[in-house]
Amino acid sequence: MVTARAWRLAGSGDINVMSLDRLPEEQPGPLDVRVRVHAAGLNRADILQRMGMYPAPAGAPTDIPGLEYAGVVEAVGERVSYRQVGDRVMGLVGGGAYAEQVIVNERETIAIPAGLSDTDAAATTEAFLTAYRALFVEGGLEAGDWCLIRAATSGIGIAAMQLSRYFGCHSIGTGRNRERLEAVAGYGLDALAVDGEDALSDLVAQHAGDGVAVVLDLIGGGGAVTENLVSLRPEGVQVLVGLMAGPKDQINLAPVLFRRLTLRAMTMRSLPLERRIELARLFEQRLSAAFASGALHPVVDTILPFEQAREAHQLMESGRHTGKIVLQMGD
Amino acid sequence: MVTARAWRLAGSGDINVMSLDRLPEEQPGPLDVRVRVHAAGLNRADILQRMGMYPAPAGAPTDIPGLEYAGVVEAVGERVSYRQVGDRVMGLVGGGAYAEQVIVNERETIAIPAGLSDTDAAATTEAFLTAYRALFVEGGLEAGDWCLIRAATSGIGIAAMQLSRYFGCHSIGTGRNRERLEAVAGYGLDALAVDGEDALSDLVAQHAGDGVAVVLDLIGGGGAVTENLVSLRPEGVQVLVGLMAGPKDQINLAPVLFRRLTLRAMTMRSLPLERRIELARLFEQRLSAAFASGALHPVVDTILPFEQAREAHQLMESGRHTGKIVLQMGD
Repeated sequence: MVTARAWRLAGSGDINVMSLDRLPEEQPGPLDVRVRVHAAGLNRADILQRMGMYPAPAGAPTDIPGLEYAGVVEAVGERVSYRQVGDRVMGLVGGGAYAEQVIVNERETIAIPAGLSDTDAAATTEAFLTAYRALFVEGGLEAGDWCLIRAATSGIGIAAMQLSRYFGCHSIGTGRNRERLEAVAGYGLDALAVDGEDALSDLVAQHAGDGVAVVLDLIGGGGAVTENLVSLRPEGVQVLVGLMAGPKDQINLAPVLFRRLTLRAMTMRSLPLERRIELARLFEQRLSAAFASGALHPVVDTILPFEQAREAHQLMESGRHTGKIVLQMGD
Repeated sequence: MVTARAWRLAGSGDINVMSLDRLPEEQPGPLDVRVRVHAAGLNRADILQRMGMYPAPAGAPTDIPGLEYAGVVEAVGERVSYRQVGDRVMGLVGGGAYAEQVIVNERETIAIPAGLSDTDAAATTEAFLTAYRALFVEGGLEAGDWCLIRAATSGIGIAAMQLSRYFGCHSIGTGRNRERLEAVAGYGLDALAVDGEDALSDLVAQHAGDGVAVVLDLIGGGGAVTENLVSLRPEGVQVLVGLMAGPKDQINLAPVLFRRLTLRAMTMRSLPLERRIELARLFEQRLSAAFASGALHPVVDTILPFEQAREAHQLMESGRHTGKIVLQMGD
């Protein structure tokens, strides 16, 4: 009997609420596949979930963190036609990816682009699909447009600057630390501003004329909201995908009204199956070839053995990483 | 020679910057019509423009206020094919409607629905197109949905509650004064909340379950922003069309992110020609029949002679009106 280990949360709190457990054997439903997980990517949401601040959405395991996996199909349901045993796949789940197996609908899996390792694949889906959806679907960014990426040193930020360049757009990135910002700029930034040091408004005026078309905002409050809004050109869109600086802020609605702006939030985690499937297809149609050619590539900061999920959480909480942290399952 | 009078602004300030002047004779361009204006509707933007706080958009007369007119086509350009002399038309302009004539593209005019008087027609376009666009185009309201209209006693508010009911939706209206709110509720409100007296959140929970689909917001800041946002259901949209309580506020982005909300602003005044044409066609396709049948009808508070534009501004500034104030030109 195949068995699988998983990290379970016993209550909420620091890393000691996590412990390595065994999953009961589970068979895929008629349209599902069981994926033997070879690597799982970490996300900030995992930390929030562990701390009890971001419960799993309906339908996801409540006590196993993990939003993205990469591995190989090891069993298929009786009506599965799109995948077969042995296919290398990656994808998003509402929870449960800190485990050696996940059960998912065949159509929400993404074929791992040729040339991507399992650990690269586990570092790809959340960052690139979030950034793609924020910039191009919710934000409506088009070739030739400028976008503002805040913060650019995050996994999503690095994905966003790559996508921006790949699709013929231009980006300004912000961050708290000049050295780290300069270290990631080569992935696709056209200009950068250090928070509290460089005048963002000057930089926007210099490069983007009457403003950027889209702000990809992982920061949220703490003084950034109005600064972001006034960076937008008329009819520009700020897409909120995180609250790294907290949820509270002052807002000045005058530029919002007179420039006819949109502030929109999106999350990936609480998407229903049909939306996850749409995004999986979008990835294969728009992005897979660019990963296969090397034009797009995930940036992995650290790979740790699956057994070191607690240490991985500590590293993420330290904020010292640039790019993704990945857990790798052994053979 | 036909001549036309117009109210001109000499600088900015109180009502004494307005004076009645004569327009130089103007011939329509090839695709334009000249409309003999019989009535012009007042809007809050007129007051702001007079005070120097809301300059006319490019292409509009800079010193003649007035955003909506009703009248009759009295001259047509050489390539005009859609309108003819004698057609009764109404419409929106970026400025210049406080005048006995306006020159507009033939396709941005709207045929006055049968049965509407000139003064009714002049009170219709801005309120109903703003409310229609906010609720159904920008907000995506659909039959069966709930919306929140804030403030409901405004001209746009009264239009919105009529549209909401006509298209099979439900509305909650807010306002500062219970008596005035109850006086307009019959136009289409399903529930009402007096600001600072009734608990809006209870009302929303009671009627709209997990929240309203759309907030139509004319209020803006002053404490309303977060209250509006938390009234929205997941993926709901707040459409900002005014700043009656000023632009500044606190915002809590947590509900924005976790409910995946959108805050979007729109104005009617700065639309380019092609968008004004689109809206004119939308009016004729979706709304004209309902005005002709009496299912929709503008609410006119006061009709004043054209010569009393200053008194009309004083009335609007007093805030004592419910519904539209209209200037009527003599024969």
